[in-house]
Amino acid sequence: MTGTEQAAEPQTIRSAGVGSTPIRFEVLDAPERPATRARAGRLETPHGVVETPIFMPVGTNATVKAMDPDDLEEVGATIILANTYHLALRPGHERIARLGGLHDFMAWQRPILTDSGGFQVVSLGDLRRIDEEGVTFRSHLDGALLHFTPEYAMAVQEALGADIAVCLDQPVPPHASTRGEVAEAAARTERWAERCLDAHGREDQALFGIIQGGLEPDLRRAATAAIGAMPFDGICVGGLAGDETAEQRRAVLDVVVPLLADDPRPRYLMGLGSPIDLLEAVDAGMDMFDSVLPARVARNGSLWTPEGRLNLRNARFLDDARPVQEGCPCRLCRSFSRAYLAHLLRAGELLAYRLATCHNLTFILDFMSSIRSAIRAGTFPELRRSIRASQAGTNGAKTASEGRVKSE
Amino acid sequence: MTGTEQAAEPQTIRSAGVGSTPIRFEVLDAPERPATRARAGRLETPHGVVETPIFMPVGTNATVKAMDPDDLEEVGATIILANTYHLALRPGHERIARLGGLHDFMAWQRPILTDSGGFQVVSLGDLRRIDEEGVTFRSHLDGALLHFTPEYAMAVQEALGADIAVCLDQPVPPHASTRGEVAEAAARTERWAERCLDAHGREDQALFGIIQGGLEPDLRRAATAAIGAMPFDGICVGGLAGDETAEQRRAVLDVVVPLLADDPRPRYLMGLGSPIDLLEAVDAGMDMFDSVLPARVARNGSLWTPEGRLNLRNARFLDDARPVQEGCPCRLCRSFSRAYLAHLLRAGELLAYRLATCHNLTFILDFMSSIRSAIRAGTFPELRRSIRASQAGTNGAKTASEGRVKSE
Repeated sequence: MTGTEQAAEPQTIRSAGVGSTPIRFEVLDAPERPATRARAGRLETPHGVVETPIFMPVGTNATVKAMDPDDLEEVGATIILANTYHLALRPGHERIARLGGLHDFMAWQRPILTDSGGFQVVSLGDLRRIDEEGVTFRSHLDGALLHFTPEYAMAVQEALGADIAVCLDQPVPPHASTRGEVAEAAARTERWAERCLDAHGREDQALFGIIQGGLEPDLRRAATAAIGAMPFDGICVGGLAGDETAEQRRAVLDVVVPLLADDPRPRYLMGLGSPIDLLEAVDAGMDMFDSVLPARVARNGSLWTPEGRLNLRNARFLDDARPVQEGCPCRLCRSFSRAYLAHLLRAGELLAYRLATCHNLTFILDFMSSIRSAIRAGTFPELRRSIRASQAGTNGAKTASEGRVKSE
Repeated sequence: MTGTEQAAEPQTIRSAGVGSTPIRFEVLDAPERPATRARAGRLETPHGVVETPIFMPVGTNATVKAMDPDDLEEVGATIILANTYHLALRPGHERIARLGGLHDFMAWQRPILTDSGGFQVVSLGDLRRIDEEGVTFRSHLDGALLHFTPEYAMAVQEALGADIAVCLDQPVPPHASTRGEVAEAAARTERWAERCLDAHGREDQALFGIIQGGLEPDLRRAATAAIGAMPFDGICVGGLAGDETAEQRRAVLDVVVPLLADDPRPRYLMGLGSPIDLLEAVDAGMDMFDSVLPARVARNGSLWTPEGRLNLRNARFLDDARPVQEGCPCRLCRSFSRAYLAHLLRAGELLAYRLATCHNLTFILDFMSSIRSAIRAGTFPELRRSIRASQAGTNGAKTASEGRVKSE
C-alpha cells in the first residue's frame, strides 16, 4: 500500500503522492462550511474515472441482478461493487483469477470495488466464531467450514482484481451490541487494518480502510484517528446503514468527517441506498455509496419517481397507460406502460425484474448526477432544502431510512 | 374473412385475390419433388414481411420469457407468437385492447400471431367439459369457471389485434385417444372453423384454420379437404409435436401436404421447436413453426451448438473460458465465457436466463435462415443430408424429437 500526503490546498488535494497509488482523487468543489460539507470529486482508477459523489450498484455474484453490462452503462453506472464473500465461496476467487479476473469474467470494463467481506461473514455465515486471527463460519451455500482472515481477504480481493479493495472488518449492529462489544470490534478492525496493509501487495489495486465504532462518539473518534493515520487510498465508514436512525447516522458522520476534513482521500459510507439517505450523507461530506436497495425494491415492484414511490403490484396500475416516470430515459419508461410492468410483475415474468431495475438505477444515478451538478454550481444547500421540503408531503423517494440489506 | 384463388403457377402463387386479405403469401422457390417439398416463401403482414420457412418464438404472457423487444430483434425474430388463452385470462384481452392492442402493449412492432387457445384450454384448464358449443374449464390461475367458444376465441384475438389469428380447435393427444375421439375432435374442429370464419370480422387480421385428425390418414385427408376448402388465409396442422414419433409425424405431413400442393396459402405446423424436427417438417413442405422449446431448455442450461447440446449446469464448464459457440454473434457468445454462464446458472442469477435464451433463439433462427438460403440456392436436400449425417454421431441439436411443451 501507499502513503498519503496532506495537500496544502483542500480544493485540490490528491491521495498518495509517492507515485505508486493506482487511484488518484481530487476534490473539485468543497463549499464553505457550515452551509454543507458536500463535495464534488473526481476519482481516477485503472479502469476509468468516477465522478463523486457516486452510487455504486451492487453485483453480488459478479452480476448486478437482472442487468447485463450494456444495461449498466445505459443506466449510467460508472463503478460497481462486487461481494468478496460471495465470490470467494462461488465460483471461487482463484477460478475467477484463472479466467482473467473479475472485469473479464463479468465483461465489465469500468471500475469495480470489492467489499470487505466482513459484513457478509458476520451476517450470512452460520456458527461463526470471531477471534483475533479471523472469522470461522459455515458457508451459507453448502455448510462448509471456512476461515476468513485479513490476509485471506486480501488474497481473495487481489485474485478478483477489482480497482479498489477494502480491508476485512468486524461490523456489529449498533443497537444489538454493548459498548464493550462495539469497542472490541472497532479495535480489532484497526488491528486487522494493519494486517491488511501488510498483506496487500497488488500495485494496480487501491486499498480502503474501515472506521468502525458504532454510535459512540469517542470510539468513532479513536477509530478515525487510527484508520486515518494508516496509508490507505480511501476511508470507509462501516457499521452504519443498519438499524440506526437518520439522526444517529448524521451524528456519527459529524464526528468522523471533520476529523478527516483535510484528508486527501475519498470517503465511502458502506451500505446506503435510499435517495434521502444519500442526500444527507453527501451533505455530511461522504463521497461514495453502495446498496442493493434500489434494485431489490425494484424487483419487488416498487418504482422510484420524483413524486414518490409507486408500488406497481397495486391493481390500479393494470390500466395505467402512462410510463412509470414521464420523460425518464430508461429502458422501461422509453417503451412500456405502467400497465405492462404491472402485468409482468403479476405474471412473474423475468422481464419485469430487468425493466424495474433499469428504472430505479437510472433514478438513483440521475439523482446523484443532479447532486454533483448542484455542488459544482454551488447550489447544493438549495437542492437539499428543496428535496427535503418535497419529501415532507409525500411517501416519496423516500423520507424514512431504509436499513442495509444483508444479501440479495 | 377472405377467399383464395388457385394460382396457375405454383412458383408464384398468392393467397386471397379478392383484395381484402391483410396478408399476402408468395412461394419463391419450390424445388421439384421428390427431392424435397421444402419451399421458401415471403409472407407480407400489416406489421412487416416474414421470410419462410420461419420459426416463431413464443411470448406466452405478451413477453418472450427473459427477452425484451430489442433482444428479439437482435436474435433475428421477425414474427412471434402470443397465447390467446393466457392473455384472455391475464391481463385480459379487453384491457390490452384499451391499452392499444398487443403490439403497443408489449412494444413489439413486428408481426404477431396469436394461437387458437384450444391447446391450452385442453391441456392447462381443469375440470374441462367440451361440447358442441365450446369448452368449459377452470382457470389455471384462480380457478374461475370460464367458457371458450369459437366466437369468443375470435373476439379475444380481434381485441388482441395480432396480424394473424387462429381458429379455436379441439386437439387430442394421438396416443391417448381412441380413433372415435380423434374423429369426433377433428369433425368438431371443422364445425368450429366455420363458426370462426363467421365470427371473425377484423379486416386487418388474417385467420388461419386448423387441420386435426391425429395419426389416422383418412381422418387427416378428410380434415385437409374440409379446412382447405374454407377461405382461410393460412392452414395450420394441429395435433402433432406431441407424443408421436418423427416417423408418425412425417407420415401425417405426407398425407396432408400433397393435398395442399397447389394451395396458395402458408402452412403452419403448431408446436415444433427442435432443429432436426424443423428440418424434417420443412422438407415435408411446412412453412411456419413455433415452440417454447429453445427458450425453455435454455433456461434450464441447455445450449444448442452445431456440435451438439451443451449442458451448462455440468461442473466441467465452470473453468471453460471459451464462448458457448465460437463465432456466434449472440449477446452471450460475444462477451461471456461458458464459465460465466455456468456460474450464473448455479447462482440462480436472472441474467443467465436472458443470455441463454438469446443464444438458443439466435441458434434456431440462424438455422432457419440457413434452411431458407439452401432452398433458394437449390441445395436444401444436400443441407438436410449433411445435417442428418452429423446428427448420427452426436447428442446433437438434436436427433430425438422433443415433445410439445404444455406451457412455460
